[in-house]
Amino acid sequence: MENSTRSDGRAADALRPVSLQPGIAPNASGSVLIRFGHTQVICAATLENNVPRWMREQKVEGGWMTAEYSMLPYSTHDRKPRDISKGRLDGRTVEIQRLIGRSLRAVADLSKLPGMTLCIDCDVLQADGGTRTASITGAYVAAELALRRAIAEGKLKESPLRQAVAAVSVGLLGDTPLLDLCYTEDRDARVDANIVMTGDGRFVEVQASGEESTFSPSEMAALTALAEKGLVELFAAQQAALA
Amino acid sequence: MENSTRSDGRAADALRPVSLQPGIAPNASGSVLIRFGHTQVICAATLENNVPRWMREQKVEGGWMTAEYSMLPYSTHDRKPRDISKGRLDGRTVEIQRLIGRSLRAVADLSKLPGMTLCIDCDVLQADGGTRTASITGAYVAAELALRRAIAEGKLKESPLRQAVAAVSVGLLGDTPLLDLCYTEDRDARVDANIVMTGDGRFVEVQASGEESTFSPSEMAALTALAEKGLVELFAAQQAALA
Amino acid sequence: MENSTRSDGRAADALRPVSLQPGIAPNASGSVLIRFGHTQVICAATLENNVPRWMREQKVEGGWMTAEYSMLPYSTHDRKPRDISKGRLDGRTVEIQRLIGRSLRAVADLSKLPGMTLCIDCDVLQADGGTRTASITGAYVAAELALRRAIAEGKLKESPLRQAVAAVSVGLLGDTPLLDLCYTEDRDARVDANIVMTGDGRFVEVQASGEESTFSPSEMAALTALAEKGLVELFAAQQAALA
Amino acid sequence: MENSTRSDGRAADALRPVSLQPGIAPNASGSVLIRFGHTQVICAATLENNVPRWMREQKVEGGWMTAEYSMLPYSTHDRKPRDISKGRLDGRTVEIQRLIGRSLRAVADLSKLPGMTLCIDCDVLQADGGTRTASITGAYVAAELALRRAIAEGKLKESPLRQAVAAVSVGLLGDTPLLDLCYTEDRDARVDANIVMTGDGRFVEVQASGEESTFSPSEMAALTALAEKGLVELFAAQQAALA
Amino acid sequence: MENSTRSDGRAADALRPVSLQPGIAPNASGSVLIRFGHTQVICAATLENNVPRWMREQKVEGGWMTAEYSMLPYSTHDRKPRDISKGRLDGRTVEIQRLIGRSLRAVADLSKLPGMTLCIDCDVLQADGGTRTASITGAYVAAELALRRAIAEGKLKESPLRQAVAAVSVGLLGDTPLLDLCYTEDRDARVDANIVMTGDGRFVEVQASGEESTFSPSEMAALTALAEKGLVELFAAQQAALA
Amino acid sequence: MENSTRSDGRAADALRPVSLQPGIAPNASGSVLIRFGHTQVICAATLENNVPRWMREQKVEGGWMTAEYSMLPYSTHDRKPRDISKGRLDGRTVEIQRLIGRSLRAVADLSKLPGMTLCIDCDVLQADGGTRTASITGAYVAAELALRRAIAEGKLKESPLRQAVAAVSVGLLGDTPLLDLCYTEDRDARVDANIVMTGDGRFVEVQASGEESTFSPSEMAALTALAEKGLVELFAAQQAALA
Repeated sequence: MENSTRSDGRAADALRPVSLQPGIAPNASGSVLIRFGHTQVICAATLENNVPRWMREQKVEGGWMTAEYSMLPYSTHDRKPRDISKGRLDGRTVEIQRLIGRSLRAVADLSKLPGMTLCIDCDVLQADGGTRTASITGAYVAAELALRRAIAEGKLKESPLRQAVAAVSVGLLGDTPLLDLCYTEDRDARVDANIVMTGDGRFVEVQASGEESTFSPSEMAALTALAEKGLVELFAAQQAALA
Repeated sequence: MENSTRSDGRAADALRPVSLQPGIAPNASGSVLIRFGHTQVICAATLENNVPRWMREQKVEGGWMTAEYSMLPYSTHDRKPRDISKGRLDGRTVEIQRLIGRSLRAVADLSKLPGMTLCIDCDVLQADGGTRTASITGAYVAAELALRRAIAEGKLKESPLRQAVAAVSVGLLGDTPLLDLCYTEDRDARVDANIVMTGDGRFVEVQASGEESTFSPSEMAALTALAEKGLVELFAAQQAALA
Repeated sequence: MENSTRSDGRAADALRPVSLQPGIAPNASGSVLIRFGHTQVICAATLENNVPRWMREQKVEGGWMTAEYSMLPYSTHDRKPRDISKGRLDGRTVEIQRLIGRSLRAVADLSKLPGMTLCIDCDVLQADGGTRTASITGAYVAAELALRRAIAEGKLKESPLRQAVAAVSVGLLGDTPLLDLCYTEDRDARVDANIVMTGDGRFVEVQASGEESTFSPSEMAALTALAEKGLVELFAAQQAALA
Repeated sequence: MENSTRSDGRAADALRPVSLQPGIAPNASGSVLIRFGHTQVICAATLENNVPRWMREQKVEGGWMTAEYSMLPYSTHDRKPRDISKGRLDGRTVEIQRLIGRSLRAVADLSKLPGMTLCIDCDVLQADGGTRTASITGAYVAAELALRRAIAEGKLKESPLRQAVAAVSVGLLGDTPLLDLCYTEDRDARVDANIVMTGDGRFVEVQASGEESTFSPSEMAALTALAEKGLVELFAAQQAALA
Repeated sequence: MENSTRSDGRAADALRPVSLQPGIAPNASGSVLIRFGHTQVICAATLENNVPRWMREQKVEGGWMTAEYSMLPYSTHDRKPRDISKGRLDGRTVEIQRLIGRSLRAVADLSKLPGMTLCIDCDVLQADGGTRTASITGAYVAAELALRRAIAEGKLKESPLRQAVAAVSVGLLGDTPLLDLCYTEDRDARVDANIVMTGDGRFVEVQASGEESTFSPSEMAALTALAEKGLVELFAAQQAALA
Repeated sequence: MENSTRSDGRAADALRPVSLQPGIAPNASGSVLIRFGHTQVICAATLENNVPRWMREQKVEGGWMTAEYSMLPYSTHDRKPRDISKGRLDGRTVEIQRLIGRSLRAVADLSKLPGMTLCIDCDVLQADGGTRTASITGAYVAAELALRRAIAEGKLKESPLRQAVAAVSVGLLGDTPLLDLCYTEDRDARVDANIVMTGDGRFVEVQASGEESTFSPSEMAALTALAEKGLVELFAAQQAALA
């Protein structure tokens, strides 16, 4: 891969420094503060003894995993008004929290969570691009911590999580594929993709999108390969935090 | 591709019968009733002489294209309550209408729509899977009709649309890749993807998602290839309707 | 009645061309596209196996009939924002859908709809005056089709509808009483009335209203007589569509 | 008219005792407490130096008159939750406040209210049937008081009200036409009508409605005649209160 | 206490004229119109045979007392838009109605109200400062009337109210402590306090607040003493109204 | 003061361990994580170049300070649903954020903040009683940090804050006055007070409240004295954090 001149001097195929600090929210069942460079997200998992109404009404067996995502008003340089000030969630927030939830459920056996809901809250403390991929990557760690604790406390027999899940962003800045875009890179990219993958290298979600631009099948392949490289490092960081 | 036993006898790589009936909504600037098998969507484009508030406030030049999507309450076998009865759009609707808008903008030169907004409404009259891909495919035709009329009436100098855009769904039912899923196939598929492409064969959006499932890179490649085959036929159907 | 110079050359006591096209919404239990001249309304009836909460709570026997009314955004020359964009129904919409519901219930024996609700959705595809009267006239046909199907399928023993119901608008343009006003006539009329009547010539609703104007008892009588004339033709059109 | 056995001993063609007590809300420009038997409504008119946004946007000349209607929670035997507890007005409230506004505008020359809005608030203190007709009858008196005061204070040159407006309910209980229905009569009536009339005997609104019932043209005529009789007495009561 | 030059000539330690007129809202279980000078509040108590959902869910024994507060739109010189026009209660309204509810519950033995809720509605008819203290003082009288009636009708064995509760405002205008502030005094005061007290001289609530100002402990003591003087008179007025 | 047996072994007049960690939210103008024992609140101040609409409309000079308060869903043992899930703020939240705003404005000279708004966000990370007093105490530090930075960057000439402000809770558990109540103490206390004070010992707010209980003037005095003792320590902790 060619040399790149990214604002922070990273190689085009380099992640930003990643850190995971467990226990940030002590009242949650499991929590972690995840950092992708300047991006910081509080991920907190709570296990509740009930399931959503639609599951009760449709008599669906097993449990549920869901997520909520929010940007704290001081996470951006210009203060971002709270969702409540408009009375409703914006479209971007809804898309992100649905994506986080689907990502976790893709690696879960919900029958092992009978009558319970695991809710993962992801609150962005500082935003510098990649908040949704950091959220997914941290959400898995928070979920795993909450489930281990529930098993230790005898509330759960075995973990419903079959393996790890993590996510990373990739994009095309001009013709250069970049890994793990920061805010300015994300703003300038003509194609932006988010790849969610399992610990054993299978896709959960592939979302590639050109806002006022398009991309070729071979560009798509290059982006996917770049993401896979970054995800290997993220899985290692998750395991280190859980050790 | 192997023989398939789809409920309607189609081959795994066959589209459902496609039809486009222009003029369904006479008061719109351009409109079409698109059918993908039993799925029917009214697509209607209106050209307005103003731009969204954020463009005025940020003094962005040019125009805008946007979309709204709704399922009519009688489009499903069990009556679907209107969005207004809950007071807000659900997450799925928000995702779909954002996707339709992005798809059109990806093939548009918005500087050729000065001070104007083209709004495409997509109302599902009958739902049988693929409503979002039918909406995108029909939205392009409705938009083209509205723009041609605006040019004919002297309101616009040239078309902001650089080329066609269309979309199709593909999925994995067990291990079989299927093209253009109907409702029951979509419900049973373990992986569901929507591919939005331009007339010259470049991607606009690639969205592949495994709900409680995952997929390999080679499965992803098979799905993409299958979509490309179907999209060629959809571009032909669009051109026929516009001729 | 004196000669009139209506924009479409109609006599003062003439309806616009009426047509009823059954089956427009195949997933509904019964549906029809009704046209009063340029006005087009999709009327779709769905039969559901439950009753409103207030009936359950107050232990009211029998069933219910209700209606929802909406103008599709592209039904008017200037795009009409969807109700959901304001988060609530406007007053006019609420009045119209309550009127449609009352009109149907006036000719119904709700005890013959035990534990069921018949919901009629009326979505205006093109608006040119008289959308509420077209909605009522079409709603009866959609309801009748849905009920016949339910009887044929053994879900219902006999029809709760005792007879037909239809509606027409009349108004005073200056001193001239006009039948079935189109949009420009409705806008310019000083008195506007909507008459809902049963197949055997009894009133269900009489609503006459002078916006910034008033009218004498004899003017009221002339309007009523004119409406009765038009309603005879509408009942015939309904029966033809149902034959 | 035959003898009747109404719960309060009234003749079928008799109003309940009417009273109008001006000045109930001292901070309003004009106010009155109107009583139709046990029904009590506070009617308060406020004159404001602005017009609704739609008038400014459409550059409509002159002024506006509008009304708001509400039932105080303790106006009924079972406490009625406030509108705000549901977050929106119910359909009945919307219909009534639109009717009050139209009734006043029908007797107004809005060009004599340049740049001003007269808002009439009608809050039901005690409900026993006829709250909308009492509201209209009281609203006229409150409006007249507010306008007289504005003229006296030099804020207005002449009154925009051309004449009085009042309203009364009539209905069919079985086959008997009754004037000015109390709550239990209204509940049991098979046809319910509200007639709004001007001081010189012209109609403003005629609304007759059969809930799960119908009525003949001759029944309609009998109801209208009965209402006219009652309205003569109401105009006299208004003039006495304004003297 | 020094001589004062209050706009209405009152001494600094004098209440405005107080009056309580029972029976203002005949359909309520108990009601009173309370006047503190020009301030007028309708206080109406309704006893209902149910408890809030949280009590049922948490299986809390006994009953509940709650309050709702609203300013009628014509209570102020400039018409105050209704809460419903914004779709939600403002912060001040929420604070006041929570305070009224707490004040009543502080003198109540809720176990003597088994399975019932006493709801006190306080609607301000005319606002001239002190609407929250007038509301509390009137709410006690309305509640007492409703409870006496319930006991007389055999619905309740004994009163849950242990003693009277009343409230008064005090404030610092410059350095002068004033009792029972009218609107202009309240607006100009640098410290504003509301004191809620029981008939036997114990505090229920002490709320003192300096908006863009502060106050010393000795000023706090002076204000409290002044309030106690006024409250003795208010308890006497309550007893006279209940006699 | 008598010996106490508080759950954490504290003396009745002892604060919980207090800590203030500046810089928790790097994108805010000033931020601090404040801890009162297990209670943790993120306080973040943002300075914006505009003022609320009411100031512009009423042409009020100077600037504004305001606050928003929220409990993160994982701050409590049982997950607390976000405000947005109900679509509106609850009454308690509104009261608290209004109190935080008033407390800051009481020590501010808003003329020194021309055309600017300082918004302090307080998000509770862990809740164990005293979240509103911790919020006020931390809000002052976050505000001071933001203002110092604005002065250093030349955006502001001098600080609008005249002195420090802090808050502490006190309460009566039985007859024992306790300082700085944790959650279980707060739940069991019969009287709960929050005292907001300036660095030079003047009150900003005194709020004492007996839920289903009352308190004497001498008990009020004891609580106030206890609060003053704790506040001295809080002012010292603030200064240490700012040094």
